[in-house]
Amino acid sequence: MPRINTGLFATVCATFICAVGVAAAVVAHADETPANASPIYGVTIPDGYRQWQLIAPATEGAPLNEIRAVLGNDIAVKAYKEGTLPFPDGTILTKLAWKHAQSAEFEPAGVPGAATTVQFMVKDSVKYKDSGGWGFGRFVNGQPVDEKQHQTCLGCHQAKVKNHDLVFSRWAP
Amino acid sequence: MPRINTGLFATVCATFICAVGVAAAVVAHADETPANASPIYGVTIPDGYRQWQLIAPATEGAPLNEIRAVLGNDIAVKAYKEGTLPFPDGTILTKLAWKHAQSAEFEPAGVPGAATTVQFMVKDSVKYKDSGGWGFGRFVNGQPVDEKQHQTCLGCHQAKVKNHDLVFSRWAP
Repeated sequence: MPRINTGLFATVCATFICAVGVAAAVVAHADETPANASPIYGVTIPDGYRQWQLIAPATEGAPLNEIRAVLGNDIAVKAYKEGTLPFPDGTILTKLAWKHAQSAEFEPAGVPGAATTVQFMVKDSVKYKDSGGWGFGRFVNGQPVDEKQHQTCLGCHQAKVKNHDLVFSRWAP
Repeated sequence: MPRINTGLFATVCATFICAVGVAAAVVAHADETPANASPIYGVTIPDGYRQWQLIAPATEGAPLNEIRAVLGNDIAVKAYKEGTLPFPDGTILTKLAWKHAQSAEFEPAGVPGAATTVQFMVKDSVKYKDSGGWGFGRFVNGQPVDEKQHQTCLGCHQAKVKNHDLVFSRWAP
């Protein structure tokens, strides 16, 4: 009867268990980030965001050529009005973007053309402690764009508006 | 004793009464159009308009160089969503305008600079039956601009957007 190498057996078992564990973790992680949530941050589109108050309109030139509107939930609006920085947990900002088209009825006017992206910043100082307290989500036709695009959010906001809690928009009176 | 010409007396009295009546009407009219209401239309700034929902952002090129946001009260938003034309009585639209400034933090972006005008269109098919059902009000620093400027509103709206109940803005999804 051959001698059983218990050391090898233990190693194989441990490797197997570990592999199963990793696989389970991957499955669990996949379950936690549903298909309609942004990569990296897991941000989903909040209900009723289109009814939120206007923070400010904006434009962006070439190559995007967009016209935009930033809206905020009640926590965001209160923080803006009171000048609260950093923004409190629960703040959500959304930026709606459209192609910047020329009005067919009034030549000097620019108006929204086709919708392009809807983007969100969600403040949660615990969940997003590694990204300045903010989670980002960029959506096209209601679906999140890929991870590569989401990798660009934080660096730009950190580089440009570190003194305004990573938020570009100011309240337009 | 001289004979009293009762016919002349009656005429003088009637003229006097008429003149008093006209003067009273003028005073009453002045009272009905307070200093904070627009000339011609008597539109005043409605409470809470800055909290209304966004209809659409817009821009206007030279010479104004403005960025704008059109907001609407609940009646306006419902009409937009349901495609109701003409807009029902009680609809109020407001256009907030700012100078279109370049962002100091992100070169391709245009953002609101100094506030310029706040304008309103108020639908009342009875009160404003002679102007397509709409009353107009244009305000700078909370005060209505002069009558001459208000004389320009209706003609432009009638010439450009007669098929959209004199309203330029469309709902930006």
